[in-house]
Amino acid sequence: MRHTISLLVENRFGVLARIAGLFSGRGFNIDSLAVGETQDPSISRMTIVVRGDDQILEQVKKQMNKLIDVIKVQDFAPGESIQRELILVKVNATQKTRPDIMQIVDIFRAKIVEVTANSVTIEVTGSDEKVSSLLDLVKPFGIKDISRTGKIAMSRK
Amino acid sequence: MRHTISLLVENRFGVLARIAGLFSGRGFNIDSLAVGETQDPSISRMTIVVRGDDQILEQVKKQMNKLIDVIKVQDFAPGESIQRELILVKVNATQKTRPDIMQIVDIFRAKIVEVTANSVTIEVTGSDEKVSSLLDLVKPFGIKDISRTGKIAMSRK
Repeated sequence: MRHTISLLVENRFGVLARIAGLFSGRGFNIDSLAVGETQDPSISRMTIVVRGDDQILEQVKKQMNKLIDVIKVQDFAPGESIQRELILVKVNATQKTRPDIMQIVDIFRAKIVEVTANSVTIEVTGSDEKVSSLLDLVKPFGIKDISRTGKIAMSRK
Repeated sequence: MRHTISLLVENRFGVLARIAGLFSGRGFNIDSLAVGETQDPSISRMTIVVRGDDQILEQVKKQMNKLIDVIKVQDFAPGESIQRELILVKVNATQKTRPDIMQIVDIFRAKIVEVTANSVTIEVTGSDEKVSSLLDLVKPFGIKDISRTGKIAMSRK
């Protein structure tokens, strides 16, 4: 099963390597990972999306809780949290195809952040499904480059 | 100096731990890190923002280039790339303060993604400066929770 794990950690060097090591040591692959500062610059929040065995994940969570640099571990079940991702995607665009691309951008309430003679760079935020649908629609034009932040999550309460 | 490093890596377990280890082994702290899939699910893109000595960073980049799972290393100078971040911020809100918060949200073209009786959750994307300005303006209401993706970058060309 896919899990979205949110961690509050002390912002010290080595913490990230240790956490990533805990997962890779157990054979977990990390689908996405996002780390950023909180309102307190000494504390960072990590959001990790992993797929793997639920029982082994329980053990990994216990191990994370034991690390002194880990303040809090949350495992969000689907629907329990607001989840968002930001994507930049650069698509081939000519004068002829640009209007079609702009139409897709409008439908998804995405934004065009850069235009060159032969490309358009689109910024889109949303859930997995929204982002995947947009990518499917622009794929026929030719994707030149893509960069995703990975998902972040926040409790609805 | 602050550097934004963009890496294309094979999506295998252990890669993230190894890269994070390269930085922490040299005493670099990672300000933010974002990892997500590319159009090829076997390849991930990592965006790392680090601060530290330029000469040591050159060594770290050489070491990263030597790792077999690393396909490409780019070090973006300021202005050379489009940089974006996504933030979710949950702010205290009463019936009385909600209109003031909504006004700030409008000015920044941010979005309200969740409302409860005593809070509002805002989604905002943009550059460091934009995001910091919004956070400064909502801080007086009381920030309950914050989650940032970390920056992603894409070449302007």
